Amino acid sequence: MSKRKNIAIMGAGLVGSLLSLYLAKRGHKVDLYERRPDMRKTIIDGGRSINLALSDRGWRALRAIGIEEDVRKVAVPMYGRMMHDEQGNLTYQPYGKEGQAIYSVSRGGLNVALMNLSEPNEDITYHFNQQALDVNLRTNEVQLRNIETDAVETIQPELLFGADGAFSVVRGAMQKTERFNYEQSYLEYGYKELTIPPAAGGEWVLEKNALHIWPRGSYMMIALPNIDGSFTCTLFFPYEGERSFAAIKNDTDLLNFFLEVFPDAVALMPNLAEDYFSNPIGSLVTVKCFPWSYNGKSLLIGDASHAVVPFYGQGMNAGFEDITVLDRMLDKFDGENWEALFKEFESKRKPDADAIADLAVMNFFEMRDKVADPRFLLRKKIETKISEQYPDKWIPLYSMVTFSDFPYSYAMETGRKQDKIMKKVMKHIQSIEDYNKPEVQQLLEEQLVHKEKLKKYQVQEVL
Amino acid sequence: MSKRKNIAIMGAGLVGSLLSLYLAKRGHKVDLYERRPDMRKTIIDGGRSINLALSDRGWRALRAIGIEEDVRKVAVPMYGRMMHDEQGNLTYQPYGKEGQAIYSVSRGGLNVALMNLSEPNEDITYHFNQQALDVNLRTNEVQLRNIETDAVETIQPELLFGADGAFSVVRGAMQKTERFNYEQSYLEYGYKELTIPPAAGGEWVLEKNALHIWPRGSYMMIALPNIDGSFTCTLFFPYEGERSFAAIKNDTDLLNFFLEVFPDAVALMPNLAEDYFSNPIGSLVTVKCFPWSYNGKSLLIGDASHAVVPFYGQGMNAGFEDITVLDRMLDKFDGENWEALFKEFESKRKPDADAIADLAVMNFFEMRDKVADPRFLLRKKIETKISEQYPDKWIPLYSMVTFSDFPYSYAMETGRKQDKIMKKVMKHIQSIEDYNKPEVQQLLEEQLVHKEKLKKYQVQEVL
Repeated sequence: MSKRKNIAIMGAGLVGSLLSLYLAKRGHKVDLYERRPDMRKTIIDGGRSINLALSDRGWRALRAIGIEEDVRKVAVPMYGRMMHDEQGNLTYQPYGKEGQAIYSVSRGGLNVALMNLSEPNEDITYHFNQQALDVNLRTNEVQLRNIETDAVETIQPELLFGADGAFSVVRGAMQKTERFNYEQSYLEYGYKELTIPPAAGGEWVLEKNALHIWPRGSYMMIALPNIDGSFTCTLFFPYEGERSFAAIKNDTDLLNFFLEVFPDAVALMPNLAEDYFSNPIGSLVTVKCFPWSYNGKSLLIGDASHAVVPFYGQGMNAGFEDITVLDRMLDKFDGENWEALFKEFESKRKPDADAIADLAVMNFFEMRDKVADPRFLLRKKIETKISEQYPDKWIPLYSMVTFSDFPYSYAMETGRKQDKIMKKVMKHIQSIEDYNKPEVQQLLEEQLVHKEKLKKYQVQEVL
Repeated sequence: MSKRKNIAIMGAGLVGSLLSLYLAKRGHKVDLYERRPDMRKTIIDGGRSINLALSDRGWRALRAIGIEEDVRKVAVPMYGRMMHDEQGNLTYQPYGKEGQAIYSVSRGGLNVALMNLSEPNEDITYHFNQQALDVNLRTNEVQLRNIETDAVETIQPELLFGADGAFSVVRGAMQKTERFNYEQSYLEYGYKELTIPPAAGGEWVLEKNALHIWPRGSYMMIALPNIDGSFTCTLFFPYEGERSFAAIKNDTDLLNFFLEVFPDAVALMPNLAEDYFSNPIGSLVTVKCFPWSYNGKSLLIGDASHAVVPFYGQGMNAGFEDITVLDRMLDKFDGENWEALFKEFESKRKPDADAIADLAVMNFFEMRDKVADPRFLLRKKIETKISEQYPDKWIPLYSMVTFSDFPYSYAMETGRKQDKIMKKVMKHIQSIEDYNKPEVQQLLEEQLVHKEKLKKYQVQEVL
């Protein structure tokens, strides 16, 4: 058992709440400070929370702390993408092998579940309505204002975790220290949350076990199922231009646009105009920074150190994997030398955080325009065949990211190599049957016979 | 004549001071606010100001406002690089064609010269000891604290220019606005300023008309001549590691290190230990951001929008070229529609600012290790020959950046293409005579005969 520490976690979101369970399990005293009110007691502002897709990396972190089954109850499996074209025709593409799925969960629902699972622990205390005004990284003092009472207090934990998201106050303090590398970059796209309600009988009005995409080249809409029979839709749309948020000024503009480009969806959206004009436009930011720790006393984790755009469905999963990796390192360092632990953690995770950030931006372009392309769908099928024929030498990039614990950076690098081979292969392919052509088989053999097997990493082994 | 505006420039450094002359010439009222005291009345803190290398882009901006000759008086031409090896052997490499030079000037000296040239103008007023506490971009109000008297006042100019450098307060305010893209990245190297004093008779103790380099692979020292016979040396050195700032703890460490790796220099540095231990370690930051303007009321310029590392000698030159480009646009917009002007300016300049930032980092590696490599020097000579044989199709990258007004982005792109050709050419080259081998000549002809002529841009034409 490591030496018991007084630990403060700034932010009681998904990563903060899950982290509290891991730290309390090791005997530490954990206080969480959250700017918002307790979401279990107040109605949440909607309209700014894309549904989340929980996948293998996320499940792994939940399983290790024993709460996988509790979360499964509020998750809907999605086995593939369902593409909707402008005539309402559907094309289906599985995400992985038989039985592999990503799971739709609502951010609020999962957060409440994590709070309810952690709060009974006597070593874990939640403090809501606490706005961090100032963080002194040298002394580890945090000045907090109670938003309800306006009272200001100063805490001084032994260790401070910044799990306070993309606009982290802890990171803001780090940005003022010497030689802190920092980048925030926005897509020229915003997002708007919309809703497809359940049918009168409570059923889902679209295929329940799929992630729905309406890809339209320069923009797209997606829909994820909720357990109550509804779908949460998100329109990803340019801020400016002919077809953009700026161009839609009133109900007529909106309806004409939706009728033209999302005809099958608009029929299922009775509250479209109300949702559209009352929900805010969310922005899509990538944050990269380094280092993530200061003096062995504070550490950024999750979005605070690596906010990503949502197009690979990996933001939360990457944050949860941070906790898995940190937990393995806690074993190794046995609660001694937190400075060395934090340094090893940030060095290990940084390349993977950068990789998933870049992959997420790349996947935006794939989802937005390529998934509607028959050549792209054919290529996905061919890749599945290669992966079946050479299972220890080829796993599609999407599967490495979503259904494995390969480090993201290894997945990205392997994906790049596979992409080069696919470009050569696809020159010979006009239909799925062409896969058996001798020249294709020979090409694959040449490319793959001397190739090393994929490293079957487990997270433990890469430490 | 455009409509007279009340303009505030934050920062009275090189770019702010020069900009004031350009704006006053067009009839605007200009106030400059500078945090530091008047450097003409107080002794400047030394040790953190690399000597500057003024080159064509800088001269162009000085010439257009009629102050080129005044500045020439304090500038020392450097016609090439003088490399010093560990035995003190010298190798010389010209920067450009016969007569082409970059010019060593002291930052302080040039700044004083610009202040003295602009201050007599009745439309220009300097305000020193003015610390910007807060900038409200919506109202253009700036809260200023007088550092001497502690008095706080608020100004509200019609237009606000942020010429306040790499750590710009105006940019800090922009960073808090929606969707502001921002990046600060540090090299793992710092720098330390040192001095080679003049000989007893006042002469220079090294070749006066050269930039001296002691390239040592993972670090380097450079020396630039001053008009008083001294040289300002800068040691670029890793923060950490076996050979680093961290490893040099006392006079003995320092002297042993310098005697081993810079033996010819140490003999000329009687104040080495004093300089080394009293001067601070400077950091090397690149800043990129976008947009550079807000609501047509405020604009970042110079380092505030694009701080670069010093290894291409282009930081000040790029800032001065900003003014040249802005001035051409002021002609075009005739003082109307500042919002459109600022947007066109930032869109035009952003790719060039990004290019010089990236080139400057790349040139660090070239200066640090490649300039000591005989193959690299041979390659430079071959490139000179190509450029002589194909003068409208080939200008070496260094010359495009330093001795032309090609946009930096065009120079970088052209440099990349030339680099590919050079890699092919150098496979056939063992000595300078090999340039005339038929296979080399044929290769060049193949590569260049159908190549377009380089666009002989003038800054005016690219607008």
